[in-house]
Amino acid sequence: MSTRLPTLAVVGATGAVGTVMLDILSSRENVWGEIRLVASPRSAGKRLTVRGEEVEVLPLAPEVFDGVDVAMFDVPDEVSKEWAPVAVEHGAVAVDNSGAFRMDPDVPLVVPEVNAEQARNRPRGIVSNPNCTTLSMIVAMGALHRSYGLTELFVASYQAASGSGQEGIDVLHDQISKVSSDRTLGSRAGDVRSAVGELGPFPAPLAMNVVPWAGSLKEDGHSSEEMKVRNESRKILGLPDLRVAATCVRVPVITTHALAVHATFGTEVDAGAAREALAGAPGVVVQDDPANAEFPTPADVVGTDPTWVGRIRRSVDDPTSLDLFLCGDNLRKGAALNTAQIAEVVAREFTGS
Amino acid sequence: MSTRLPTLAVVGATGAVGTVMLDILSSRENVWGEIRLVASPRSAGKRLTVRGEEVEVLPLAPEVFDGVDVAMFDVPDEVSKEWAPVAVEHGAVAVDNSGAFRMDPDVPLVVPEVNAEQARNRPRGIVSNPNCTTLSMIVAMGALHRSYGLTELFVASYQAASGSGQEGIDVLHDQISKVSSDRTLGSRAGDVRSAVGELGPFPAPLAMNVVPWAGSLKEDGHSSEEMKVRNESRKILGLPDLRVAATCVRVPVITTHALAVHATFGTEVDAGAAREALAGAPGVVVQDDPANAEFPTPADVVGTDPTWVGRIRRSVDDPTSLDLFLCGDNLRKGAALNTAQIAEVVAREFTGS
Repeated sequence: MSTRLPTLAVVGATGAVGTVMLDILSSRENVWGEIRLVASPRSAGKRLTVRGEEVEVLPLAPEVFDGVDVAMFDVPDEVSKEWAPVAVEHGAVAVDNSGAFRMDPDVPLVVPEVNAEQARNRPRGIVSNPNCTTLSMIVAMGALHRSYGLTELFVASYQAASGSGQEGIDVLHDQISKVSSDRTLGSRAGDVRSAVGELGPFPAPLAMNVVPWAGSLKEDGHSSEEMKVRNESRKILGLPDLRVAATCVRVPVITTHALAVHATFGTEVDAGAAREALAGAPGVVVQDDPANAEFPTPADVVGTDPTWVGRIRRSVDDPTSLDLFLCGDNLRKGAALNTAQIAEVVAREFTGS
Repeated sequence: MSTRLPTLAVVGATGAVGTVMLDILSSRENVWGEIRLVASPRSAGKRLTVRGEEVEVLPLAPEVFDGVDVAMFDVPDEVSKEWAPVAVEHGAVAVDNSGAFRMDPDVPLVVPEVNAEQARNRPRGIVSNPNCTTLSMIVAMGALHRSYGLTELFVASYQAASGSGQEGIDVLHDQISKVSSDRTLGSRAGDVRSAVGELGPFPAPLAMNVVPWAGSLKEDGHSSEEMKVRNESRKILGLPDLRVAATCVRVPVITTHALAVHATFGTEVDAGAAREALAGAPGVVVQDDPANAEFPTPADVVGTDPTWVGRIRRSVDDPTSLDLFLCGDNLRKGAALNTAQIAEVVAREFTGS
């Protein structure tokens, strides 16, 4: 086993997640030799800063993977589907943040705090990073599952605009600017819809509104986002029979997803013990003192790495259930950070550490 | 039984709910003789329009109830607690929209589409109007309960600023205005908190944020709003053993509460049949075609009377559960409209209709 530092390629370096990835690569302990930045030909040639150095963005092509040990993909599903196997053919391990391979039985779906060991069992040379909504809760739910044995999960999400990428961020800023000057808005049907202008990636106005839809239409009226929360939670936790119901809703927040969770376990739970289990879990911060206005909110959590948990209560009518409110930065732990953590797990195979 | 039109007093005529009440009294079929408007001495003397006529607001005092048949109260709990019994002593039936009497076993808690008959059984002369969050879903849940027999309810709310009254509306407009000019906001921890200025009635910034708190702290970390959803749903539906878990969250919407609901029944459910039961229920509109971006959102529902229901799905992992998304205008059906409907039920006793 060599001890040279592995070479990393970041594919999709100029997108919303890619931008956060460069920040994360610059602030975490460095485990990488060369870092190559890659994007669509349209963005190639830009110079971006990573680890304090300017690096020129290369256009996506097979030869950018020559000599690459780990290739991260922060790109749309169809780009990952085509190019992750190309990276693998060139000898790289692909760590993919798209939905292209997550439910492939030959591709592990990894959250290092929950199932790091699965990153080493990758028949296709690919490791998948979960969906951002699943990631906003799964580290905390993994800790509670280890304590009590999870049997059922109901999730209602409060998802940020940046889950729809840079376009989502831009459109929400535009809409907020358009509704801000008229103090009569929000009291008559349709007045916000008339005021916001372009809907962008959202199917309804997002400023001064909430929109019960994210993703595409799947069987029986469920959205793709809701099915991802169910299927990915089951796969990550290794609970193929877990009962999950999710309703995914977009809210006018720039970045950081929040979730209200009702979780049922195989045994009676205690809120104090649950709080301790969560406080002791890696990657989780408990903020839970409502008498002093202490609970996580997206505005305070954005830009931080952990999953924040508050409002931890035993359900009034069911001693085997907990009610919680969780927040996680959907671009950091929900995307770039978890991808970086997976890549670091893989990097240890090269450095032997 | 006389056939004269009964006299109505509207106490709290100048508040956020009172303003909507005057609009509702002006647009519904008129069942009232004199309408007297009453408010705190601070607001007395104002002239407000109801049924196309200017009416001077009277200061709250015992004599304003002389000759009043029905007195509506849209005022804080402590004002109702003191003054509703005064109205009753003067011979009026009090219809109270505060939390003061809702759980009193001698005060019926009425939603006319669900349990109108209970308005006539009022040992204390008082009928209570439910909390706005409960009202945003209970008409729809009552219809589904009649079809399938409700056994368990999980609710996550998306509650509008106007649930905290006119101050909530004003503060949210102020905050939106303050965050609208800086397009970098929302990506760094605390930057929204620094920008929004006054928090007003909310324990955290509401613009570009969601806040998992409404009301006051109750036992075991639950909020008063969450306990109201549980206790009032049980009382209205006549289901003292119903299992309810609620997480109540404020969102940056001016008016109209939304809820994600996971409801479990005593029998298997079918989404199509549930949709038909809801479509046939009075006070409910089904808007459920996500392929064509048809689902209720607060921006479209605000200012309308019904409970709007969409995203109607049978849970993937439980054939006895439905997942839904509901919206109701918290100042109309959630407050003023339901109060007016109760008052009309009582008015029929005077007119014999």
